[in-house]
Amino acid sequence: MEHALPPVDLATLRNAFQGRWFTDPADMAPFLTDWRRQWHGTALAVVQPERTEDVAAVVRWCQHMRVAVVPQGGNTGLSGGSVPGLEGRCIVLSLKRLNRVRALDADNNTVTLEAGVTLQTAQEVAAEAGRLFALSLAAEGSCTVGGNLATNAGGVHVLRYGTARELCVGLEVVTAEGEVWHGLHGLRKDNTGYDLRDLYIGSEGTLGVITAAVFKLHPLAGAQAVALWSAPSATAATRVLHQALARCGAQLTAFELMNPLSIALVQRHMPGAAWPLREAAPWYVLMEVSTANETSCAQALEDVLGPAMEAGDCCEAVLSHNEGQFRALWAWRENISEAQGAEGRTIKHDISLPISRIDAFISMASDALARHYSALRLVVFGHLGDGNLHFNLSPPVDACTPTHATAFLALEPGVNTLVHDVVQAHGGSISAEHGLGVLRRDEAARRRDPVAHRLMLRLKTALDPHGLMNPGKVLPQA
Amino acid sequence: MEHALPPVDLATLRNAFQGRWFTDPADMAPFLTDWRRQWHGTALAVVQPERTEDVAAVVRWCQHMRVAVVPQGGNTGLSGGSVPGLEGRCIVLSLKRLNRVRALDADNNTVTLEAGVTLQTAQEVAAEAGRLFALSLAAEGSCTVGGNLATNAGGVHVLRYGTARELCVGLEVVTAEGEVWHGLHGLRKDNTGYDLRDLYIGSEGTLGVITAAVFKLHPLAGAQAVALWSAPSATAATRVLHQALARCGAQLTAFELMNPLSIALVQRHMPGAAWPLREAAPWYVLMEVSTANETSCAQALEDVLGPAMEAGDCCEAVLSHNEGQFRALWAWRENISEAQGAEGRTIKHDISLPISRIDAFISMASDALARHYSALRLVVFGHLGDGNLHFNLSPPVDACTPTHATAFLALEPGVNTLVHDVVQAHGGSISAEHGLGVLRRDEAARRRDPVAHRLMLRLKTALDPHGLMNPGKVLPQA
Repeated sequence: MEHALPPVDLATLRNAFQGRWFTDPADMAPFLTDWRRQWHGTALAVVQPERTEDVAAVVRWCQHMRVAVVPQGGNTGLSGGSVPGLEGRCIVLSLKRLNRVRALDADNNTVTLEAGVTLQTAQEVAAEAGRLFALSLAAEGSCTVGGNLATNAGGVHVLRYGTARELCVGLEVVTAEGEVWHGLHGLRKDNTGYDLRDLYIGSEGTLGVITAAVFKLHPLAGAQAVALWSAPSATAATRVLHQALARCGAQLTAFELMNPLSIALVQRHMPGAAWPLREAAPWYVLMEVSTANETSCAQALEDVLGPAMEAGDCCEAVLSHNEGQFRALWAWRENISEAQGAEGRTIKHDISLPISRIDAFISMASDALARHYSALRLVVFGHLGDGNLHFNLSPPVDACTPTHATAFLALEPGVNTLVHDVVQAHGGSISAEHGLGVLRRDEAARRRDPVAHRLMLRLKTALDPHGLMNPGKVLPQA
Repeated sequence: MEHALPPVDLATLRNAFQGRWFTDPADMAPFLTDWRRQWHGTALAVVQPERTEDVAAVVRWCQHMRVAVVPQGGNTGLSGGSVPGLEGRCIVLSLKRLNRVRALDADNNTVTLEAGVTLQTAQEVAAEAGRLFALSLAAEGSCTVGGNLATNAGGVHVLRYGTARELCVGLEVVTAEGEVWHGLHGLRKDNTGYDLRDLYIGSEGTLGVITAAVFKLHPLAGAQAVALWSAPSATAATRVLHQALARCGAQLTAFELMNPLSIALVQRHMPGAAWPLREAAPWYVLMEVSTANETSCAQALEDVLGPAMEAGDCCEAVLSHNEGQFRALWAWRENISEAQGAEGRTIKHDISLPISRIDAFISMASDALARHYSALRLVVFGHLGDGNLHFNLSPPVDACTPTHATAFLALEPGVNTLVHDVVQAHGGSISAEHGLGVLRRDEAARRRDPVAHRLMLRLKTALDPHGLMNPGKVLPQA
């Protein structure tokens, strides 16, 4: 049966958190605004516990006082899930200092990390042990593995290794009651009850606080190489994806699509690099293979692209032959988001589709945008191998200044509806890897299967009966 | 808000299920006993709906009448999860006739199957489309994909492709209220709310009824080969596993361990095959690689086993060079379960461990069994690559007849406790791929983290408030 834990006294709590309990507005400010500066909130305090028991104590105090808890990792989310709203009656629970590497078991290919470890640190720790921490995404220098799990983050290697969910085997969670679930096992197979792990993963702190996790590690690839190539159509690119999967299987580790405007923005805002293809084309692809050695990498790329060129599905290609070229070709893809940010505000869509519907979706959505929003510029890039596109819009070329931002952003609801209607008509999802947060909360609720929606509300009530865990995120407030 | 669905009248229901609503004891008998003949139950009726809406109608009627629902697939489970208890106030909902292939999208690498499709049919349908349905296990001729999901089944290719959970992207579920959740998308990435899918997967019909699912397909391997080899110790075998992972990565598709008694039982009960290794050894390994062609398969096996032989980690090895040899070598592993069954009753343990603890576990558990149950014979085999062992016991060599069965099975609780204590001491799980059913329900509850246990009870109450979905399975009844 449920039992109440002893409440925690505020003075005791403040005392326990000396130097890690902020109430000064200037100290709190960075924790109250998201990094895109779209959402601003207020809080009673920001607290940075260093141990799981301290997280539990804070949550118990909040429950006792009916104060909301807003868990926060690196605060790099794109959907506003990690900052509070304007109600003010909340504590921001920053997990940045809960950041120890608890264990690395190379012989089990697992690493146990506290929630506040940055993704980059996780990658480095694994590499030092001769292993690969396979999650990789743009914010890796500052995002945390706890935030990655809370949003079920994706990135550029999902095609081969899966999302954050698929890389996690065990969890430690502080529940809404401030109890600790010790579920930090390092097992590939465990069927001893309901899957609590996957329920907390992707729930954006609305059911409890992930404080630590066991992640799978993979062998380091012997060698890696990329090809940057151009395709006459998205259909052609998809055809080559299937040929690459058939030829390379799991050795195909990334397959990224980019439209010409994506590349043009990188050229404009990150000058210095020379675009290596001679002819313009409707689409560009960055394709990565990871194999035992450089010879087999080169062979794999050639085996895929040779026939694709003959079939007319690949127009022109360059291959990396060393680490420098590898990094330089990847940079074209990695810099798109930042380059688009430098072009003014962005209307983002983080959508996924069955791969078989990508081409039809792109045609239909682009046509509809051209009809109704002809001045907006479409920046399309993303993980074709996962069916996940960032189908973004930038302001008209002569309206990129801050003074135009308001007019541009006023278009956002209409543009979202247009794009997401086409996504839904093609069996897709309006949130692939950025989470719902507040940005997609209401729209996801409207578009969700009503039975699924009622089930989710019941799960929320079952695990957070007072509605104090990151309220207003993921689900509309009751 | 929740809304009540109209109740269904029994006469209407029977009429709708003409010829698929059994109440005759002889007709019902095969559905009331599990295939190991360990559990026997009673029921008001056995019903075989052919459409999801009919499943929903049956569940609505059961809810209205407060009659329990016991979903059943191929009834091949090993933990008693698919047969009713002795209370009698239940309907067995057999999903065998809900068995259409709804869609196969080769360009999205997905197939949509109803719950009653057999695993073998799923494999065949995929192969006809030039794709791999990657789940593979002994009961595949009669088990159903719905049952595979309900128990999160594993099998011999989890090392490469994951369990049933990791192969499933979308679900259709009839909830405990008899509503239909339409979640049959074919998306690799979808973060639009709580992960209902993984909550239903592995819940053994205790939260709702899985009626259909979308599964990932993989490219067919160009070629496959196996090596059967002997190892001087489990540590040596584990060392070679890591070298094989480093050399082959995802091309290593199975890594199975077998002790000498496993092989001896296959030789005794399935005569006709000649064991291909000359010297006896403490452990045998069956290792499978899947690559682009036969040459690279052979090369991969040699690259792993050559250095292993030099290091003394591999004593002797044979490799398959054609399909016949491939099948013949696999047969040694595939026939162990049946051979052990022919040796009298079996005390089974379906356990998993961190791979780094396998050797210590085997030593400690074997020693303890030798001290306390010296006459019993240990048959150890399983998926070393997943850390999953079937650590089974057979009766003494002179006590295998049915008359000795009672005395042997009386030892089961003590033997279970001994083995599972050692599993728990090494951070392992007492249920890896067979589910909890009734066999492991109470023991799992005793050994479960108490916070996790309370959370699971709340989830059960939230999704099945009247406790009518497969009662007495997974969790002890309230």
